[in-house]
Amino acid sequence: MPNPTAAMLVIGDEILSGRTRDSNMHHLAKVLTGVGIDLKEVRVVSDDQPAIVAAVRALSDGFDHVFTSGGIGPTHDDITADAMGVAFGVNIDVRDDARALLQAHYNRMGTTLNDARLRMARIPDGAALIDNPVSTAPGFSLGNVHVMAGVPAVFEAMVASVVSHLAHGAPLLSSSWRVMRGEGDVAAPLAQVAQDFPDLSLGSYPFQKDGAYGTNIVIRGTEAAQVAAALAQVQALFPA
Amino acid sequence: MPNPTAAMLVIGDEILSGRTRDSNMHHLAKVLTGVGIDLKEVRVVSDDQPAIVAAVRALSDGFDHVFTSGGIGPTHDDITADAMGVAFGVNIDVRDDARALLQAHYNRMGTTLNDARLRMARIPDGAALIDNPVSTAPGFSLGNVHVMAGVPAVFEAMVASVVSHLAHGAPLLSSSWRVMRGEGDVAAPLAQVAQDFPDLSLGSYPFQKDGAYGTNIVIRGTEAAQVAAALAQVQALFPA
Repeated sequence: MPNPTAAMLVIGDEILSGRTRDSNMHHLAKVLTGVGIDLKEVRVVSDDQPAIVAAVRALSDGFDHVFTSGGIGPTHDDITADAMGVAFGVNIDVRDDARALLQAHYNRMGTTLNDARLRMARIPDGAALIDNPVSTAPGFSLGNVHVMAGVPAVFEAMVASVVSHLAHGAPLLSSSWRVMRGEGDVAAPLAQVAQDFPDLSLGSYPFQKDGAYGTNIVIRGTEAAQVAAALAQVQALFPA
Repeated sequence: MPNPTAAMLVIGDEILSGRTRDSNMHHLAKVLTGVGIDLKEVRVVSDDQPAIVAAVRALSDGFDHVFTSGGIGPTHDDITADAMGVAFGVNIDVRDDARALLQAHYNRMGTTLNDARLRMARIPDGAALIDNPVSTAPGFSLGNVHVMAGVPAVFEAMVASVVSHLAHGAPLLSSSWRVMRGEGDVAAPLAQVAQDFPDLSLGSYPFQKDGAYGTNIVIRGTEAAQVAAALAQVQALFPA
């Protein structure tokens, strides 16, 4: 059975303006690879409702799971939750259980649950809350879309929680082999190995070290025996 | 006149599997912001022709410029150039000027221009070459799509070359102000400033330091006087 597929949607002007370097994509990619969910596409869009809605609909239709990051805080530019309501055609309002979580949190901190903070309890109808062990304000899952915070510590905690509830596939295994020859010398033999192992993905990544050209060959697949056999073939072609 | 718009397409299994953390998106975002070209969307897809073709067509139709990274090397998994030919419905073959560049480069290095390396001279009909001062193998521009290497040093050199030939807009200016209060306290006054300056983008980015909550407020826009006025209003609301 093929692995479940996933896409990610990163939401935020700060990424597209270059102010912030996103780290959530790389984190999610590693986590999903480890549990056998194939991340097939990532999109980054700005804090713009039509752009968010269009991307969510396309990715939700195209993949088994969609993970979003960003735009669920208390300020005017946090528009992700409302955009999800629009994308799925459902109402959104402050929900009692989310409000209770926030109220308890701010009571503990001696802070007022003002109107801005209460925005973080706005949850589209039919969604399930995602626990936020870092700063309480919840994410939510609506259909196959998991809506999470952009702050990396919160995103990572929410991903762990969501992924623990999803059906896992066969983890993607990888082996790599370092060859001190340029990609152009490696290409033809490597293409033959790729043909011999159609279920594996063989990648080659050039590097330069002390003026010499080298290539890292990476073999990826879900069957350990196949990955090992392909690695042996690569090692025989390019002895250490 | 509004700024030109741009999108980026990152191509490569190694990004989606989490093996490699992409750095080209962040670099391109900073460069485009500096020259007044608005990066509106980024997509990351795997080394899969239908995925590349669909993304290129959508982004080419939707934005003034598209920048791609990855998949133009000599190996079997370098399929970007062929995908561009398919996306634009044009033929692709080894081109004499690109072959001459490679031949001269490998002559200098005492290396054979073998069939694999010659793949890097495959250029879709109608494209213009993009200079590669790092490792010679050229990128190309086809319509409004600029096809560049994934290796960061090469990507960055190609971006500099391409961007120098494009019409620039008004550079995006930004000012930021650090407030030692949580986002929830900043939200309502900040929303008012955002309303007062509809041409500016006001973002707020929470942080924690020594257990205290703070917020970085970032004001972005193309008019220096407006950015300065909004900053003064923010500073008056949240004195240092």
